[in-house]
Amino acid sequence: MKRYAIGLDYGTDSCRAVLVDTASGEELASSVQFYPRWAEGRYCDPSRNRYRQHPLDYVDTLEAAVKETLAKAPAGAAERVVGMAIDTTGSTPALTDERGFPLALLPGLEENPNAMFVLWKDHTAVTEAAEINALARTWERDYTAYEGGIYSSEWVWAKMLHVLRADEQVRRAAYSWVEHCDWIPALLSGDTRPGSLRRSRCAAGHKAMWHADWGGLPPEAFFARLDPLLAGFRGRLFTETFPADQPAGRLSPEWAARLGLSTGVTVAVGAFDCHMGAVGAQVEPGAFVRVIGTSTCDIMVAPREEIGNRLIPGICGQVDGSVIPGMIGLEAGQSGFGDIYAWFKRVLEWPLRHLVAGGDAEEAIHRLIPALSAEAAKVSPTESGVVATDWMNGRRTPDANQLLTGTIAGLTLGSTAPAIFRALVEATAFGSRAIVERFTENGIEIKEVIGIGGIARKSPFVMQTLADVLGMPIKVLKSDQACALGASMFAATAAGVYASVLDAQRAMSPGFERVYHPDAALREVYDKLYLKYRDIGNVLH
Amino acid sequence: MKRYAIGLDYGTDSCRAVLVDTASGEELASSVQFYPRWAEGRYCDPSRNRYRQHPLDYVDTLEAAVKETLAKAPAGAAERVVGMAIDTTGSTPALTDERGFPLALLPGLEENPNAMFVLWKDHTAVTEAAEINALARTWERDYTAYEGGIYSSEWVWAKMLHVLRADEQVRRAAYSWVEHCDWIPALLSGDTRPGSLRRSRCAAGHKAMWHADWGGLPPEAFFARLDPLLAGFRGRLFTETFPADQPAGRLSPEWAARLGLSTGVTVAVGAFDCHMGAVGAQVEPGAFVRVIGTSTCDIMVAPREEIGNRLIPGICGQVDGSVIPGMIGLEAGQSGFGDIYAWFKRVLEWPLRHLVAGGDAEEAIHRLIPALSAEAAKVSPTESGVVATDWMNGRRTPDANQLLTGTIAGLTLGSTAPAIFRALVEATAFGSRAIVERFTENGIEIKEVIGIGGIARKSPFVMQTLADVLGMPIKVLKSDQACALGASMFAATAAGVYASVLDAQRAMSPGFERVYHPDAALREVYDKLYLKYRDIGNVLH
Repeated sequence: MKRYAIGLDYGTDSCRAVLVDTASGEELASSVQFYPRWAEGRYCDPSRNRYRQHPLDYVDTLEAAVKETLAKAPAGAAERVVGMAIDTTGSTPALTDERGFPLALLPGLEENPNAMFVLWKDHTAVTEAAEINALARTWERDYTAYEGGIYSSEWVWAKMLHVLRADEQVRRAAYSWVEHCDWIPALLSGDTRPGSLRRSRCAAGHKAMWHADWGGLPPEAFFARLDPLLAGFRGRLFTETFPADQPAGRLSPEWAARLGLSTGVTVAVGAFDCHMGAVGAQVEPGAFVRVIGTSTCDIMVAPREEIGNRLIPGICGQVDGSVIPGMIGLEAGQSGFGDIYAWFKRVLEWPLRHLVAGGDAEEAIHRLIPALSAEAAKVSPTESGVVATDWMNGRRTPDANQLLTGTIAGLTLGSTAPAIFRALVEATAFGSRAIVERFTENGIEIKEVIGIGGIARKSPFVMQTLADVLGMPIKVLKSDQACALGASMFAATAAGVYASVLDAQRAMSPGFERVYHPDAALREVYDKLYLKYRDIGNVLH
Repeated sequence: MKRYAIGLDYGTDSCRAVLVDTASGEELASSVQFYPRWAEGRYCDPSRNRYRQHPLDYVDTLEAAVKETLAKAPAGAAERVVGMAIDTTGSTPALTDERGFPLALLPGLEENPNAMFVLWKDHTAVTEAAEINALARTWERDYTAYEGGIYSSEWVWAKMLHVLRADEQVRRAAYSWVEHCDWIPALLSGDTRPGSLRRSRCAAGHKAMWHADWGGLPPEAFFARLDPLLAGFRGRLFTETFPADQPAGRLSPEWAARLGLSTGVTVAVGAFDCHMGAVGAQVEPGAFVRVIGTSTCDIMVAPREEIGNRLIPGICGQVDGSVIPGMIGLEAGQSGFGDIYAWFKRVLEWPLRHLVAGGDAEEAIHRLIPALSAEAAKVSPTESGVVATDWMNGRRTPDANQLLTGTIAGLTLGSTAPAIFRALVEATAFGSRAIVERFTENGIEIKEVIGIGGIARKSPFVMQTLADVLGMPIKVLKSDQACALGASMFAATAAGVYASVLDAQRAMSPGFERVYHPDAALREVYDKLYLKYRDIGNVLH
């Protein structure tokens, strides 16, 4: 009898469910559901880099996505589902009560952004991150060491401290915190209590300063010194963490009924989207896997014996088992990638939104990025002279710094919208190059780049520019749903269909659809422009 | 009997004629004619900063503007016209044949951009300007001294050498060169021969390295050393120059007939627009007059005895009699001002032009700058964080450098189109502040700012920002036609109605319509942002 797995992938804007045959990896059905409150722009303030998501956005879309997927699947599919696994953005944590309920589910806090999940790209905690870094420098042991030596405002402790400080009502209700990727498996398996839910090694190791070397999270004294508001929090969290090939539990009777599945379904421990996506995309030692969307998440794995005790400076994480159990998972990434194109689109949209009537404006906005890309592809990188940096949303790696801002330089009266767009695309590629160079300078060999995510499949202009700037070929996975597919591999493993994630990966991978080869003629041009990009960074910041 | 004067003002896009009563300065009629070939974008390549204008654009619009003005004027006005004076943009020179005909009037050269007038803002001669500066540094005498010590690619010798080098056909036909402001008076008075037409002190002194100290233009050996292509040119030009209160001649029978005027009309020596505009705007010692349009031209006058032999570094000109005969005229300016707003408008227009159907797009484009200004006025300069420089068209003063480019820094994903527009407006104001500070640092007191030109009257948001950034009040002249009005004052003086330009100015000035007072609360904010502006300039260039 066939055994199916469900992979659930929570992105920035939507929740995607994929039903997969565990034997072949074949996608049988899928569904994408957009977060309804988020789509209305609620709880966010882009001018202050505040991005919050309501827990009900996650619950509503989970149910709708799974149900629609099963409805589209062949008859009898629901009975064949043996496992589910969940990946999410991260670090995307929320404060909870003693039951592990995100505070926005409590009466009186439903509309309070500080009671919601603080989305990965929220940068309101810049001050708190700086304080964590300052304190870490004074401590005998550097708890940020395995996170690149710089704690980011995008990460859980900075964010939780920020909302605790900012909001007395929330402070009074807060007992513990939970990452989005830990909350959903706990919810599905019926026990969200902070002390008993199984926490993701991936989230804890990359974002919460958890490491086996110091017996889990940093000590209570560290947090109490950081701010008395955090006193006691550590004890209401966790010591142990789990890779995502382990079960978090089984589907609770309530959720089995809501989703139309059986209580025999294994729910795997969660992980971040890019980590599961990397598995879906055939990550292995030497492969640099990039999830390219609004931001990028870049993943490599290295055998323990190869990397040893070496730390790579300025790279945001290296955690044992965070991607593939038994190997060190290395994480890097760019804070803004597609988001930077979307920002420029918003700037260009302004006249359309304010000065053109409805339908025509919507139609034009819809066609804007493809039209810009087509024209930008014709702009000569040697002639335009425009050079940009890609830090409109700060910089995650190398050398995290959320205070950095974006620059567009080399502008003349002849600089056109497509030329500026091209410069922004080049800027995101230069940001990628800075990451690749940091790995290779530290002896982590990169033999190939594998692209997944929306931009990898939909933007040939961006991918070709990236190949040209990196000077290496880029393979694109033959799937729109790499993260959800990777999740299904974890689901299959956690449910016992495979003995290891590597076995699941070998059996279930969809293969590659396209390779972008770098244009050798552009090598020298981009070497020069890359130096300009670095110069702008060096002098302006 | 009433005596009338005609002021003719050639701007970047159009020719304007104004008929004025010499007794009161009252404007009786006027007409604006847009250059037809220029309006179609012919002969230009903005991506290479190449801007050329066809001599027939000047001739056609001259005739149309004067005729329409006279047609609108009270009956009998034509017979009362006693003088005409012409101001133009500059340096805007063309190569000519032995008769003084701009080469584009010759058969076979009608469509050759190198045979046309090279508009002030054309920057194709960057290399040639650098060569002039390099040679000037090796010479015993610095012929660029009275032009701020840096020869610009916007000026006649660099431009003429550039087109001579670039185009063999043009080279073979070239005998001499002429500035636009010299050619029109010569044309009207019937003698354009290079050896006999009366050249403007203003153009020659500010742009051609003419100075009485060294007996006119630099010596033949200087030009021959610069490039053998220039050998002999000096001898086919001029030694003497004239202020614009002097007659260039009288209207020729041909042109008297074409325009419907008498051959008794005195045609004054020409000058640049901003110099005549400053006179129209009541320039006097201590007043900083700014013609604010696509670029700015900034004019001051200082009595000879006050300024003595002092040279102000990095200011592009100080010439005896270039504005008011008997005083030293000081010229500065920004290479881009309104042009920078127009550039951003073009960037924002891209989706409208490419993705929206005709009428709606045109309507939106028309409303774009006012709508942006209204929103930009609401953006807090402390909160937006966006800081720009204003060198998208290079920098004229202080310290001319046409290789500079524009920068927009401090960008985040929350930076909106209005916030960027505001930063660009602030950037142009910071550029103004840099000029003001250069004057005051060198002991030239500035007691008041007088604004004229399109932007001064039509853009309260820009003018208020300028007052806030400069920290001084700005008076705006009660006339849309300050340059043409100033020209009419010169026309009246050259025709003998007044004994001096100062007398004409006193009698004919229209007064001021509005004063912008600086907001003291913004002083500190702008002091800080100005330092950021300077930092960007210091580190990126």
